[in-house]
Amino acid sequence: MKIQNVDLMYLKKKYGTPLYIYDEKHIKDNMDGFLKYFHSSKFKTEILYASKAFSVKEIYRIAKEKGMNLDCVSLGELYTAKSVDFDFSKIYFHGNNKSYEEIEYAVKNGIGIIVVDNLMELELLDSICAKLNKTQEIIIRVNVGVSAHTHKFIVTAHVDSKFGVLYGSDDYKKMIEICNNSKFVKFKGFHSHIGSQIFDLEAFRAALVKLITYAKDYKEKLILNIGGGFGVHYTNEDSPIPFNKVSEILIKTCEEELAKENIEIEKLAIEPGRSIVAEAGYTLYTIGFTKKTPNKEYYFIDGGMTDNIRPALYQAKYDCDIVGKENEPRNHKVTIAGKCCESGDLIIEDYNLPEAKTGDLLITYTTGAYGYSMSSNYNKALTPAVVFVEDGKDKLVSRRQTLDELIEREI
Amino acid sequence: MKIQNVDLMYLKKKYGTPLYIYDEKHIKDNMDGFLKYFHSSKFKTEILYASKAFSVKEIYRIAKEKGMNLDCVSLGELYTAKSVDFDFSKIYFHGNNKSYEEIEYAVKNGIGIIVVDNLMELELLDSICAKLNKTQEIIIRVNVGVSAHTHKFIVTAHVDSKFGVLYGSDDYKKMIEICNNSKFVKFKGFHSHIGSQIFDLEAFRAALVKLITYAKDYKEKLILNIGGGFGVHYTNEDSPIPFNKVSEILIKTCEEELAKENIEIEKLAIEPGRSIVAEAGYTLYTIGFTKKTPNKEYYFIDGGMTDNIRPALYQAKYDCDIVGKENEPRNHKVTIAGKCCESGDLIIEDYNLPEAKTGDLLITYTTGAYGYSMSSNYNKALTPAVVFVEDGKDKLVSRRQTLDELIEREI
Repeated sequence: MKIQNVDLMYLKKKYGTPLYIYDEKHIKDNMDGFLKYFHSSKFKTEILYASKAFSVKEIYRIAKEKGMNLDCVSLGELYTAKSVDFDFSKIYFHGNNKSYEEIEYAVKNGIGIIVVDNLMELELLDSICAKLNKTQEIIIRVNVGVSAHTHKFIVTAHVDSKFGVLYGSDDYKKMIEICNNSKFVKFKGFHSHIGSQIFDLEAFRAALVKLITYAKDYKEKLILNIGGGFGVHYTNEDSPIPFNKVSEILIKTCEEELAKENIEIEKLAIEPGRSIVAEAGYTLYTIGFTKKTPNKEYYFIDGGMTDNIRPALYQAKYDCDIVGKENEPRNHKVTIAGKCCESGDLIIEDYNLPEAKTGDLLITYTTGAYGYSMSSNYNKALTPAVVFVEDGKDKLVSRRQTLDELIEREI
Repeated sequence: MKIQNVDLMYLKKKYGTPLYIYDEKHIKDNMDGFLKYFHSSKFKTEILYASKAFSVKEIYRIAKEKGMNLDCVSLGELYTAKSVDFDFSKIYFHGNNKSYEEIEYAVKNGIGIIVVDNLMELELLDSICAKLNKTQEIIIRVNVGVSAHTHKFIVTAHVDSKFGVLYGSDDYKKMIEICNNSKFVKFKGFHSHIGSQIFDLEAFRAALVKLITYAKDYKEKLILNIGGGFGVHYTNEDSPIPFNKVSEILIKTCEEELAKENIEIEKLAIEPGRSIVAEAGYTLYTIGFTKKTPNKEYYFIDGGMTDNIRPALYQAKYDCDIVGKENEPRNHKVTIAGKCCESGDLIIEDYNLPEAKTGDLLITYTTGAYGYSMSSNYNKALTPAVVFVEDGKDKLVSRRQTLDELIEREI
């Protein structure tokens, strides 16, 4: 089995397993897709890669090369972007609890937009800007109260979410007042993020309509950022909407609503993260022992919840194959269990696969988002390497952690 | 507020927050407690610290000093133990999918006991021992089918668990046959682990009775290792049994059952992990922004699911205090939310606390187990420092990760 004409056994031998593999062409195609289709003649558009899905230097280099901007959520992500000389004016900085240090770093380095989550943040930001004598454009994260149909952990816009403020609330009014009175912070618009892994475009439409309703109250042309959360294909239970369709519907909705309300906006922004990297990512494991219990059959892999916490955390489902046996009869119903000393360390349960033997490679699909980024050293497992492949070539993007690195901070 | 007469504000200033703080005396007292009470005149006893709860060099140094043995589950944990010259003959090595490299490392370094999970592991171990021309004592992890009443993710001994073999099954019989025919692997007894955070001693009694039933079939005096899983106090909903009581009941049960069955054993072993370190651990955070939504009030902290995934992963509950305001009226029902860009990053929900302001310190209790060990760099958060305190003194055990370390493996 090959990805981008690179053989998986070759990758195993060169880099070891577990191994995160990304199809670089797939990433670039996804970026190109959004960049191509997310356009309007009525307003500017902006596509921000949502870093938290997968943040490494190389993805920032690719985003830069493609002309895609960034959404960062922490000093760590900003620092990574800085390390590849990413133009900070093209970054939106998110977070419900940004620290003094983070805000200062962002402002000093000329961050494009700060997405202000709450009143206290705006007060802090205003004081930091005053101290640095710098102006800063901001948009306000508003909670539009749209509830997207998805796993409860990843719904972010119910009215009591930790994120954002309600439009028109006392806090909101105070925030606008601060902007109006400040020499430093410039109100530029709204941000809304309604959830993750959403397949229902109506939810995005509803959120966008809300933002446009809010924008009517302002005479300036605003930036509307409707966040991310576009669903991807993990298994056949998922029916994602292609990004050209997503783009078309969002742009059309926006144009129509603006015409109806007779207003203009400066820019419509979106923040795809998962939809850029998830399906481009694969995790390669080596099968160790196998085992039969009275009602189950297990294939044990050399990774698990340490490199992919999503099955344990969100009951996320994945597809997989035994490398080289993709076309063999799937006559074993097996559970893929990780090597952590923890019962819940099961990656895929009761899944039909061919017979596998020790040393076979197992590949899981659509692991490009929130796999590496949420990885841990639980059980003192080493963080796997990350390799990008394209057109027959492989490129190491993050090397495997060493045992010495695992304990380097311990006294 | 002080822990071991060390002021928390001093610790914040010296090490920053989030900060894992361990009361070293409490850890030592817990170890001493087990070491004191877990004794019998009828058989040897052994207490193994279950590393996965919290594995750093310093805890291994303390275990060594106290004469407590170790339970390790990976090359990473073994390597950490090696780095402080822990006597490998006092280590049990666990895991459902040990790799060739791990087994070889363990055997070469003279590991005391390998807890063999399954038939294939035993075959591999036997071949590695033959290659190294080394003998190796093993115990077999058996699934006793006892179901402890606890969260489903952390029940490990239902008959279809990924761990262990069923006594008397075909695989089990083959394992005994291998031991009987091998010049290298020596069968020494059984291991059973029935779950985590268990408050019902009847479950342990039942498991122990099973092991003794199995031991009757052997004329050699065996090692019986009944694992860990002793419940600790997270909140007032938890009623843990003191270790002297746990010890007393287990020892008494064992003595009585052995007498009844008229057999002897070589040793009874237990593996407390959580019950050694959980309650000795605290996490110190600084409160950033606070926020009111229509039905909720939030205090935002500078850490969250990156340093404590248990609330999101297991819906685990914790108690907390605002440092210095422990005795003030608890007239705010608040949710403690982390700083990750993720709705589920809530550490404690709807909890009564006094009014807090930005810069106040918040301390969560009983975070000594599975906090640091399961921490991640999600959102590119830096791993916090770990400090031990005792008798007015503080000691850095693992320093905070730096931004450069965060990206040191990236190309």
